[in-house]
Amino acid sequence: MIPQRLIYKKNKLLILDQRLLPEKISYYTARNVKEVHKAIKDMVLRGAPLIGDTAALGYVMAINEIKTQKTEEIIKELKKTADFLKTARPTAVSLFKAVDRMYSKTLEILKSKNCSIKKLKHELEKEAFKILKEDSDSTYQIAKYGISLLKKNSRIITYCNTGALATYGVGTALGIITEGFKKGRVSYVYSCETRPYLQGARLTAWELYRNKIPSALICDNMAGWIMKTEKIDAVIIGADRIAANGDTANKIGSYSLAILAKYHNIPYYVAAPTDTFDTNIKNGSHIKIEERSVEEVIKVKGNYIAPKNIKARHPAFDVVPNNLITAIITEKGIIKKPNSKKIFQHLH
Amino acid sequence: MIPQRLIYKKNKLLILDQRLLPEKISYYTARNVKEVHKAIKDMVLRGAPLIGDTAALGYVMAINEIKTQKTEEIIKELKKTADFLKTARPTAVSLFKAVDRMYSKTLEILKSKNCSIKKLKHELEKEAFKILKEDSDSTYQIAKYGISLLKKNSRIITYCNTGALATYGVGTALGIITEGFKKGRVSYVYSCETRPYLQGARLTAWELYRNKIPSALICDNMAGWIMKTEKIDAVIIGADRIAANGDTANKIGSYSLAILAKYHNIPYYVAAPTDTFDTNIKNGSHIKIEERSVEEVIKVKGNYIAPKNIKARHPAFDVVPNNLITAIITEKGIIKKPNSKKIFQHLH
Repeated sequence: MIPQRLIYKKNKLLILDQRLLPEKISYYTARNVKEVHKAIKDMVLRGAPLIGDTAALGYVMAINEIKTQKTEEIIKELKKTADFLKTARPTAVSLFKAVDRMYSKTLEILKSKNCSIKKLKHELEKEAFKILKEDSDSTYQIAKYGISLLKKNSRIITYCNTGALATYGVGTALGIITEGFKKGRVSYVYSCETRPYLQGARLTAWELYRNKIPSALICDNMAGWIMKTEKIDAVIIGADRIAANGDTANKIGSYSLAILAKYHNIPYYVAAPTDTFDTNIKNGSHIKIEERSVEEVIKVKGNYIAPKNIKARHPAFDVVPNNLITAIITEKGIIKKPNSKKIFQHLH
Repeated sequence: MIPQRLIYKKNKLLILDQRLLPEKISYYTARNVKEVHKAIKDMVLRGAPLIGDTAALGYVMAINEIKTQKTEEIIKELKKTADFLKTARPTAVSLFKAVDRMYSKTLEILKSKNCSIKKLKHELEKEAFKILKEDSDSTYQIAKYGISLLKKNSRIITYCNTGALATYGVGTALGIITEGFKKGRVSYVYSCETRPYLQGARLTAWELYRNKIPSALICDNMAGWIMKTEKIDAVIIGADRIAANGDTANKIGSYSLAILAKYHNIPYYVAAPTDTFDTNIKNGSHIKIEERSVEEVIKVKGNYIAPKNIKARHPAFDVVPNNLITAIITEKGIIKKPNSKKIFQHLH
């Protein structure tokens, strides 16, 4: 139903260009790690898990450019690659984890075997595909646990895009919804358009439409009124990074939505793989919020929607504090009323 | 600073076309009441007070088309005109009040004098201009009272457009801000873009820019995060209709913003002329909410931002219950913690 997001070929990576959706299904071709970095940075793809997957494959491609046979220099080169890839987006911890894992694997391979470049590449490819498979498997597990929280025929509000397009599987929050719909647990979905980048309007609405799930698009500012005037059973949302205490960084607007859900006594569920946890970060106040381009706010599809020279703000993410979260759903299970202790137990 | 919104000439009315702002300052020419109705309906102009003003002038123009000299038939014709004008927009009570007032004046003129059509037109023109002047005077009074609620250098969030462009004067909520800035009571303003029609991005940001007020545009979904991470002293917003108990209908998103303000202990002020009160309506549950075109949600500046065939919702207004309102500011003064009793006393 939803096209392949990543197609890895010998010396290139085809990436479904999500900037052109829903009008056009088209692939961006990355031929080296620089082009993969650019694709992540320019949001050819997005979604924390998919960013991790893409970076892992990008890391593998860096090997094509290695000229030396000396282990020490290979390690040096790949350390540079890892550091470079990590600069592509600042918020998604799965990017850092995927890259760190690839680098650790590199050290492991190079230390344990007298290894050719060819062999190294082969082993790293295997590791990258393991990351992709784990991402995909995770989404089905998340869906299973998430569905267990929903009554029959639930009516859901979701935000941003957390579907197949954000992962290598069925998605996180939207995965619960699409799988839940198949099982009769979800009957109707409101997707918020998610300004300024409109991931909800462009991507989630498209996924819901392709999956034939009864749904309607709303502007972000309509969510409160919909909660007041209609039966809404849950808000289900993803996360880009989760601190040790359960505070979660997610797309800008998630915080407002959490307050609105609280006010209307609607459960607010965060769905994300355990890779999203960054336990080095004690709480949300330490999460660096990416401030993206003002142009993305004052222009829509290339047209100005506001006077050209004005100031605008564009924090791309915000932080939902743990006290506004009913439960975090991971591939390992459900953390109700998340706090540091419960999260530690969940992860270990 | 802000161009004239209405220019009334002998047999035509020039209306500043707010759909083309901020790129283009251009006037829509209405030559008869049908074209005035169309202008209101198609949102050439908007803003509750300005809608009332425009309708009053449109009513006068209907006289040009009257063929009869018989009082009874003139009344019948103008009754039709009044009923027709009232169908242009369903929420703004000032539209109904302005038109009803013009019709009452008609009856008064025609009963008290043996009156020619020319004389009738002249008298009704005088009445329409009185409505415009009262609107303008009101805005300065509202500004005066509103400013009294603000500490020096207040940082404000505002919503939709409630400025000079929405009235014949300095504006309601935005009038408080622009006049407050001159007096040092306002130091910074965040204007919310106000999806789907983007009155905040197109109009308020433009007014703030032209008035050289330090400000930034934000997406509606950023308001909660801004409240949490920055010092915000007040939300100031307008109203399209206010029920007898103080529940107010305003642009969609006002309700969410009120909940966010409450959560962050930020005062939420509603600024509107007393004309905005509809005391026939006991509370907000009886206010009819205009559901506007889905196209306005899924298209921005003529471009689709979502798949073409999807469903979308477009309630154009929502209702903020009185318990979320810190005070209502009118040209007569301030109603703190509004309720039916206080509002009755305020209006009588």
